[in-house]
Amino acid sequence: MSISVETFFLDTAAEGTLQARIQQMVAQGILKGRFRPGERLPSSRRMATHLGVSRITVTLAYTELVADDYLTSRGRSGYYVSENAPEPPAFAAQRAATGTVDWTRAIGRPFTPGVNFDKPADWASYRYPFIYGQADKTLFDSTNWRLCALQALGMRDFTALTADYYDRDDPKLVDFITRQILPRRGILAHEDEVLLTMGAQNALWLSAQVLLNSRRLAAIEDPCYPALRTILTQARCQLSTVSVDADGLPPDALPDGTDVVFTTPSHQCPTAATMPIARRKALLQKAEAEDFLIVEDDYEFEMSFLKSPSPSLKSLDQNGRVIYVGSFSKSLFPGLRLGYLVGPAPFIREARALRATVLRHPPGHIQRTVAYYLSLGHYDALIRRMGRAYHERRKVLDAALKAHDLTVAGVGTYGGSAVWMKAPPGVDTALLAARLRADGVLIEPGAAFFAAEDPPRQYFRLAYSSIPVARIPTGVALIAAALKEMAGESISI
Amino acid sequence: MSISVETFFLDTAAEGTLQARIQQMVAQGILKGRFRPGERLPSSRRMATHLGVSRITVTLAYTELVADDYLTSRGRSGYYVSENAPEPPAFAAQRAATGTVDWTRAIGRPFTPGVNFDKPADWASYRYPFIYGQADKTLFDSTNWRLCALQALGMRDFTALTADYYDRDDPKLVDFITRQILPRRGILAHEDEVLLTMGAQNALWLSAQVLLNSRRLAAIEDPCYPALRTILTQARCQLSTVSVDADGLPPDALPDGTDVVFTTPSHQCPTAATMPIARRKALLQKAEAEDFLIVEDDYEFEMSFLKSPSPSLKSLDQNGRVIYVGSFSKSLFPGLRLGYLVGPAPFIREARALRATVLRHPPGHIQRTVAYYLSLGHYDALIRRMGRAYHERRKVLDAALKAHDLTVAGVGTYGGSAVWMKAPPGVDTALLAARLRADGVLIEPGAAFFAAEDPPRQYFRLAYSSIPVARIPTGVALIAAALKEMAGESISI
Repeated sequence: MSISVETFFLDTAAEGTLQARIQQMVAQGILKGRFRPGERLPSSRRMATHLGVSRITVTLAYTELVADDYLTSRGRSGYYVSENAPEPPAFAAQRAATGTVDWTRAIGRPFTPGVNFDKPADWASYRYPFIYGQADKTLFDSTNWRLCALQALGMRDFTALTADYYDRDDPKLVDFITRQILPRRGILAHEDEVLLTMGAQNALWLSAQVLLNSRRLAAIEDPCYPALRTILTQARCQLSTVSVDADGLPPDALPDGTDVVFTTPSHQCPTAATMPIARRKALLQKAEAEDFLIVEDDYEFEMSFLKSPSPSLKSLDQNGRVIYVGSFSKSLFPGLRLGYLVGPAPFIREARALRATVLRHPPGHIQRTVAYYLSLGHYDALIRRMGRAYHERRKVLDAALKAHDLTVAGVGTYGGSAVWMKAPPGVDTALLAARLRADGVLIEPGAAFFAAEDPPRQYFRLAYSSIPVARIPTGVALIAAALKEMAGESISI
Repeated sequence: MSISVETFFLDTAAEGTLQARIQQMVAQGILKGRFRPGERLPSSRRMATHLGVSRITVTLAYTELVADDYLTSRGRSGYYVSENAPEPPAFAAQRAATGTVDWTRAIGRPFTPGVNFDKPADWASYRYPFIYGQADKTLFDSTNWRLCALQALGMRDFTALTADYYDRDDPKLVDFITRQILPRRGILAHEDEVLLTMGAQNALWLSAQVLLNSRRLAAIEDPCYPALRTILTQARCQLSTVSVDADGLPPDALPDGTDVVFTTPSHQCPTAATMPIARRKALLQKAEAEDFLIVEDDYEFEMSFLKSPSPSLKSLDQNGRVIYVGSFSKSLFPGLRLGYLVGPAPFIREARALRATVLRHPPGHIQRTVAYYLSLGHYDALIRRMGRAYHERRKVLDAALKAHDLTVAGVGTYGGSAVWMKAPPGVDTALLAARLRADGVLIEPGAAFFAAEDPPRQYFRLAYSSIPVARIPTGVALIAAALKEMAGESISI
């Protein structure tokens, strides 16, 4: 039996080359049971005419399908669905019934709502995206990344790509982190003091699980990264929040009996404050005197374009009290999901055992690609390119904020990728953000960063990591105009 | 100042092309501060002669270094270290002190020893690797995988690659799983009933966290996948073990008050038993009658080369009581770390919230690559190729085991990738495995699969997923010889 050419339609919404789409169309028909073994495909000429593509494209697609044993070629008589082609399942699939389970009871431990992510997935379609923590297409070095990924996909690296590492990491990547990245933060570490993680999020989570329990007291900054608060809430430990000031976390304000402090000394999240050296030393002294540990989230240290970054807290730590969290999310891209923990070997051993149970290891291909990207120097080149661009954007942003007389509540001394803003009294920045979306402007309302049930609502974060420099002045002007309108409204009420 | 050509040495142990290694050598020298801005590199001709490579290779490396702004080119006068080149850190890195922390006290929750992985990382160098669950270079379709990975790295997919998905998954991949993979297991599911995970391990872990707590009773098979026992031990729930028979888990043996049953009906791990339909239905009836849930680990269902696989337990589930765990680790490769959970929406919602806290989402590039690989039909082609090879290996293995009169304790009715073996009484298969390593033979001792403190020691697993068919007879002969020797020794004692 011949399959009619009329049954074929190219999915216009599909992606990929024409050839790939033809392969996909034929393979799907076979997999769904529409075409059966032994049936004859339309000739490449007929198919090409029908689809309006060149004949060679169809021939190439057919040849690929033969290689995958979907089709067989019988010389001049044409292409047939292979006798070895996969068969559709013998039983009909059925939709699971809604069920008889009482899920409010069946859930043993609730984790919702968890972190509340309300950033729009289509942020790139906004004209003025002051959005935080996303990759900028215009800065990222896709070509070299692709080359490194391709190298890591080669047969030479087959094992690195495919193997079950169990609880281990890619030795090449660990080597580059210890030899290249950590020394820049003033840290020397052995390989048994480093653990790769699924981003900084996973590193913070592992730290919380290993160091805390229901009797231990964790201290976090207020405001702070909301996902960290969720991590600690789910960890079911005691939790205290400490308000930060212009220098970040004040050690004197830590409550008695603190077991673990989570802090962001390089760029306090979200206020961007940098902790001065004297305060870092005071914090370490207090940790030693009161026998607590410190988890240092050093995200974004690479973005120090205003002056050289100060040494990390960990590099000042004489007593093995600091667990260091690093990440490639800000410097490469967040979808990579790769970060690392640095700490004393007994801690890393526990975190590694937990990671093995939870997920085994970060994917081999991701690890090897980053290892190549680092070793070839592309990483450093990218950081410098990003630093130059951020520096320029920051200057323009600072000038625009000043021109419109907007209040900056916090900026990074060394750089960073965002400023922390304060709206006039009475303005709810969640409403401001909603209003600005209609103008194509994305800002991040600040309430979610605060621990209080009724948090301050007048703060917001303006990131310059994804917005082109030329659009910053208009974007800020739109924010200023909206703020003026809202202030007027609140007065008129 | 000129940099002497004598200071350059190609690292002979390094990987990558000659050009890449030259780039790396120069970049490292700059990053470590050995070469300073303004210093002149040796001419490409001198460098080429010194290193014994072609001049064009050096020129290409220099050109790349200029593109990354490590070097600048000053026309005929040559290449110089760029004024914008990155600087080494201003402070010296220091090794963290051993410290003053009492780590036996500081660990809030211990996770070691956790899963005990004692498989050799260099298994591929063994001549007779009856090793389980690793990718076979000779079967895996690297070319098409590489093409799909490359497509997923294109600018068209920039967002899919780089974006922070927060708690979401790649819609393309979820779509293919629900439309292509699940229907083959008899399952229809909406996208809000599917969650991507970091392999089956992560899926099982998430399920345990969401469904259990200290008052709930989980039942697992005995013997079972050791990492599952670790997951449940760390979950701090009540745990009971149920001995399996030749048909897998017997529902009648489940203790009263069971809340969640973890089972492997397709191929019981490790005995390879397939649960008959009648028993599946009995298990589901009991679940409904006694109000418990079932987590079905359907790993390796694709490897059904002897006959069509029976429908999954989930497809028979009328009451929404089954959580289904799928994985690409066996069909693609374990280093991918990609699996999925299918279950009622209220369960998936909780698992998604927990995943967001623990790691956010599996890397975007991995998800998109698998989506392409599935959509182009390569996945099905690979499964068939693997199935044919496994079928052939299984026939040869069965014959060899019979010829040497070795005792098979369990085999998969539908296929699988391993057989479960029983050594003569008195043989400790851990000693057998150690002895066989010297002969280049890798087997997996069975004791770790059992829950008992003093587990049976005479079982072992023989996998045929990574051993070439031609080596199976000799490998089995070596095992038979070692068993005969050990039996003789145990008699002589």
